Amino acid sequence: MRRGKVPYSALLSYTTEILEKLGYSREQAEVTAWVLVEADARGVCSHGVARLSFYESNIRDGYTFTGAPIEIVRETPLSLVVDGHHGVGACVAQFTMTRVVEKTKHIGAGFGAVRNSNHFGMAGLWAEMATAEGFIGMAFCNTRICAIPTFGRERILGTNPVCFGIPSSGKTPFLLDMATTTVAHGKVEVCERRNKPMPAGWVVDESGDDTTDTRHFQKLFRSSRPEGGHLFLGGAGEELGGHKGYGLGLFVDLLCAGMSMGTWSRDTFNAEGGGISQFFGAIRTDLFGNRTDIENHVESILHQVRQSAKASGRRRIYIHGEKEAESRAQSMAKGIMLDDASWKMLDDYAVKFGLEKLAPEGRPGVRRLAAALD
Amino acid sequence: MRRGKVPYSALLSYTTEILEKLGYSREQAEVTAWVLVEADARGVCSHGVARLSFYESNIRDGYTFTGAPIEIVRETPLSLVVDGHHGVGACVAQFTMTRVVEKTKHIGAGFGAVRNSNHFGMAGLWAEMATAEGFIGMAFCNTRICAIPTFGRERILGTNPVCFGIPSSGKTPFLLDMATTTVAHGKVEVCERRNKPMPAGWVVDESGDDTTDTRHFQKLFRSSRPEGGHLFLGGAGEELGGHKGYGLGLFVDLLCAGMSMGTWSRDTFNAEGGGISQFFGAIRTDLFGNRTDIENHVESILHQVRQSAKASGRRRIYIHGEKEAESRAQSMAKGIMLDDASWKMLDDYAVKFGLEKLAPEGRPGVRRLAAALD
Repeated sequence: MRRGKVPYSALLSYTTEILEKLGYSREQAEVTAWVLVEADARGVCSHGVARLSFYESNIRDGYTFTGAPIEIVRETPLSLVVDGHHGVGACVAQFTMTRVVEKTKHIGAGFGAVRNSNHFGMAGLWAEMATAEGFIGMAFCNTRICAIPTFGRERILGTNPVCFGIPSSGKTPFLLDMATTTVAHGKVEVCERRNKPMPAGWVVDESGDDTTDTRHFQKLFRSSRPEGGHLFLGGAGEELGGHKGYGLGLFVDLLCAGMSMGTWSRDTFNAEGGGISQFFGAIRTDLFGNRTDIENHVESILHQVRQSAKASGRRRIYIHGEKEAESRAQSMAKGIMLDDASWKMLDDYAVKFGLEKLAPEGRPGVRRLAAALD
Repeated sequence: MRRGKVPYSALLSYTTEILEKLGYSREQAEVTAWVLVEADARGVCSHGVARLSFYESNIRDGYTFTGAPIEIVRETPLSLVVDGHHGVGACVAQFTMTRVVEKTKHIGAGFGAVRNSNHFGMAGLWAEMATAEGFIGMAFCNTRICAIPTFGRERILGTNPVCFGIPSSGKTPFLLDMATTTVAHGKVEVCERRNKPMPAGWVVDESGDDTTDTRHFQKLFRSSRPEGGHLFLGGAGEELGGHKGYGLGLFVDLLCAGMSMGTWSRDTFNAEGGGISQFFGAIRTDLFGNRTDIENHVESILHQVRQSAKASGRRRIYIHGEKEAESRAQSMAKGIMLDDASWKMLDDYAVKFGLEKLAPEGRPGVRRLAAALD
C-alpha cells in the first residue's frame, strides 16, 4: 500500500506544519523541516521525516525545549562555544555553522563547539555549508548510547558520526558523512522485520561476544541495562581493525563533549537531561593555493578514482556524496519516495492535529500556492 | 638467535651513523634516527629501524635527495605550503610541524600542506608535537599504492594514515594513529612467513574478490601490474562499512595531495619520481575554554571508558596511545627489543660501512660516552 512519491515542496510545508503543532516556532519548524526533508530527498531515510516521532518524544520527555535560548558562551575570531540549552538541534547547528563560515571568510578558518543540543539531522548538511563557499567543511556529533569500545560489552558511546567535505570543480563536493559504527541501528531493525540474522561484525551480545542473533540483540538493545551494543567500523577485536573504528568514535566524543565541556555519549538522555555535543569546522582552501587550481586538482584525483578498474560484477566506483546528490536530483524531478511507515505516521499526525492529509501529488492548497509563487 | 634488547641511546647513535653513511647530513641523520628509534621503542616496528633499507633504496633509486632544499611556497598567518623537493621526509615533517605549532601559539590554529616529500615515520610523532603544547594535533599522509576503492580491483590509493591527538590531564594524550586500510602490509608478510591464509577482509585479488590466499596475493602485490590490493577499514563491499574506510583513505589523499597541489597515492614513486604528500594541523584547546578544565574533562571521559565493563576474557579497555606509551616506558627502562631481521640488517650495515657492530648492551664507545654525559 505504498502510495508513491511526494513533491519536495509539499513534504516540506507539511513537515513544517507538524513541527509547529509540536510547539516549534515558525522559524524553528522551517529549519528543522528542511533538514529532515533534505535527508529523505537524498535517500538517507534514517535521518528524514521518520524522525518526527523521535522529535515529538524528545519534547514530551523533557529533552528538547523549543523556548530555549541559543547562547554563545565563549568567542574568539577563530572559534565559538555555544550552549544550546536543550533547544532545537537543527537551529543550534545552523546558528553555529553560520558563524563558523563567517569566521572562515574573515580569518581563514573557524571552529564551533556545541553543548546541550539535540539531534541535528545529517551531518553532511552542515559540512556542506562550508563546501558551498569553497571551504573544507567538518561536522561531528555524539549521540544516544549505542556502541561499545573494543574489548568492552557496555554501551557507552554513540554512533558518533564524522563528516568531512572537500570542494571540487566537479558536479558535487567530496562529502564523507559516516557513522563510526559499522552500521546504524536502522539496519538491525530491517533484519528484525525480515526475521533474519545479522552479518557477524555488526554487534556484540551482553558478554561482548560477536552475535548474529537479531531477536536476542534487539531485546538487549531495548533493555534499560546498557549491555551489548553496536561495534565500531572494523568489528570486534583487532583482527579487522575494530580498535581503529572505536578510536574514531572516541575521538568524536573527545572533540564534541571535550571541547564544549558538554555531555559525552554515555550521559546523553540521562536523568539529568544530558544533551548532545557537537563540533563544526571550516578551513579556506585558498590558504594553500589558488582555489580554482586546488578544486581542479581535487576533481582530477576523483575522476581517476572513478575511472579505475572495477571489481568483477561492478560497474561503478562511487565518490562519497555522489549517491546522495543523484538521489536528490531524482527526488526534485520526480518526487521523494517515502516508505509505508512514514506515510502512516504523516497521516496519523494529520488526524491528531486536524490537518489536511498529505497526498502523493501534494495537497491542493499547496499546489495552488506553489503555482502562485512560480 | 634473537640477541636481546638494545639501549635507546645506543640504537639512536648507531642509526644516526648509518644514515650519515647513506649520505644524510648530521642533522638529517639525527632527526631521522629519532623518528625510527621512537617507533621501535613504542613497539611500532613497522616504522622502526627496519625501514633503513627502504630509505637506502629511495636514495639509490632517485626518490630521495639529501641535498634538497625545504621550500615554503606559500605562507599565511594560519598556514604554509612546503615543497620538500624530494628531500628527507622526517626533516620536512619536523620543519612543517614546528611552524604549524608556532602559528598555533600565535593565532590559535595552524595548518601545513606538504608536497614532494618522503616517508615521515609514524604520524603520531608529529601530532604529538601539538599535544605536547596542549593543542589538538593532526597528521595525515599518502603513501605508495597499496589499496583499492570499494568496488575496485586496482591499487590506486595508499595506506593513507590519519592521526588525531587530543591533550588530556592523564598520563598520556589520546593519540589515534591508524592506517585507513584494515591492516598494514607487514601483517600479510607475517602470514606469508608462517605459511598461513589471511583472514577474509584484508585484501582482494586481481578480480576485486575477497581472498585469503596469502601466496597468490603476494605474487600480485609484488607484480608491476597494480591489480589486487588491500581493503580499507570495513573490508570489501558495503555490508561491513568498507565504503567508510575507503572514504577516510580518499579524504586523506584529497587533503594531502589536493591542498598541496602534490602527487596523489597512485602517482607516488612513479617514473617521474612522484613524492609523498602530507598535511598537518593544530588547534588550541583554549579557543574553547579553560585549558585545564578541558583536559580534566577529556581525562574524565577516558577514565570512564577504561572503567566500563569488559568483554568475557578481557581485562582491559585501551585508550589509543596507551599501549605505545607503555612500550616506550618499558623500552627506556629495559632496552628496545629488535627482531632477528633487524639485527641482521644492522650487522650488515656495520660490515658494509666498516662500523663497530651494535651489541645488545650497546657498544663500548657509546657506553663510555653515555657515562661521561651522565
